[in-house]
Amino acid sequence: MNKTIPEKIKRIFDKYYQADLKIWKAFAEYIEPRSFLKGEIVKDYHRTEHHINIIISGSVGHFIANNGKDICLNLLYENQVFSDYLSFLTQSNTPIKSECLEDIEIWSIHHKDLNELYAKSTEGLIIGKAIAEAMFISKQHEQIRLLTLSPTERYLKLISDRPEIFQRTSLKIIASYLGVSPESLSRIRKRIYE
Amino acid sequence: MNKTIPEKIKRIFDKYYQADLKIWKAFAEYIEPRSFLKGEIVKDYHRTEHHINIIISGSVGHFIANNGKDICLNLLYENQVFSDYLSFLTQSNTPIKSECLEDIEIWSIHHKDLNELYAKSTEGLIIGKAIAEAMFISKQHEQIRLLTLSPTERYLKLISDRPEIFQRTSLKIIASYLGVSPESLSRIRKRIYE
Repeated sequence: MNKTIPEKIKRIFDKYYQADLKIWKAFAEYIEPRSFLKGEIVKDYHRTEHHINIIISGSVGHFIANNGKDICLNLLYENQVFSDYLSFLTQSNTPIKSECLEDIEIWSIHHKDLNELYAKSTEGLIIGKAIAEAMFISKQHEQIRLLTLSPTERYLKLISDRPEIFQRTSLKIIASYLGVSPESLSRIRKRIYE
Repeated sequence: MNKTIPEKIKRIFDKYYQADLKIWKAFAEYIEPRSFLKGEIVKDYHRTEHHINIIISGSVGHFIANNGKDICLNLLYENQVFSDYLSFLTQSNTPIKSECLEDIEIWSIHHKDLNELYAKSTEGLIIGKAIAEAMFISKQHEQIRLLTLSPTERYLKLISDRPEIFQRTSLKIIASYLGVSPESLSRIRKRIYE
């Protein structure tokens, strides 16, 4: 395993929990690098999630189907962690899909291996707790954003966080993520740049 | 501390993580019983949450303000756990409020005490991980419900889970929780019972 991997994982998780590098070395031993092409499904609707993944390059969306239409729940890019974490925790099927929006390279850790790490050491448990807390924090922020910001404010926040997003992700998917129609998003952009 | 308290806490958490009773005994030692009257704020908007609470009697709602209107995020009754958990984890202010919908008695554990429990034992950490995971599972189910069920389906699920809800909680708050106007909720109920 490349010696920069634990350092990279530590940098990604440090904002949630600053664990010692040796803990991330133990974690890194379980990492399985995987790659998928744009349009490929990493985890399908009504299937069970077996991995937690770190995005090394590319982007992924989480979707849920509503009346035959895919609604985008999350957009995830480099150095972000993704998983259908409800399915991962309960090891049961969920109506959530993870689909590649660009070719991706990811580092994955399997459910079985992560549980082995939890059982092996206090540090493993600390990581498990940190992952669960980070997932909750991100999900709760998502709900607050959707309920307290107007579509225009959500749009402005998104391009401030991800200035390159319109070069990488289709307008249709960004609109779905912002909770507006593609036409409304076009109007919002037009109004701002006029 | 009453000797039935650890048993009661164990029953509430068993569906998430089946910890040994001795772990809940350690947890129970930190419990502080609190009570609030209907209409009182347990944790206000733009304040910091210091507790995780178990409802012994009564009910509580989580709210977020949107254009001067309170939107109900969650409705919580006996034997459920509540906390503005984002605020609790980050120990920072959030735009979420917890308000009593009936007089309540709750068992509360303070942030400082819970962290002491985490630091003291592996079992404490297991509990911390279980709490974070339970909070995520509940939040993700909430999002799936809102996105995949119609208002009528959400209503039917709610009365099947909580048949007594209309005797205890106002139509206006239930409507907000279901994501519909009070008028729409009245129409849904009329249609079903006609």
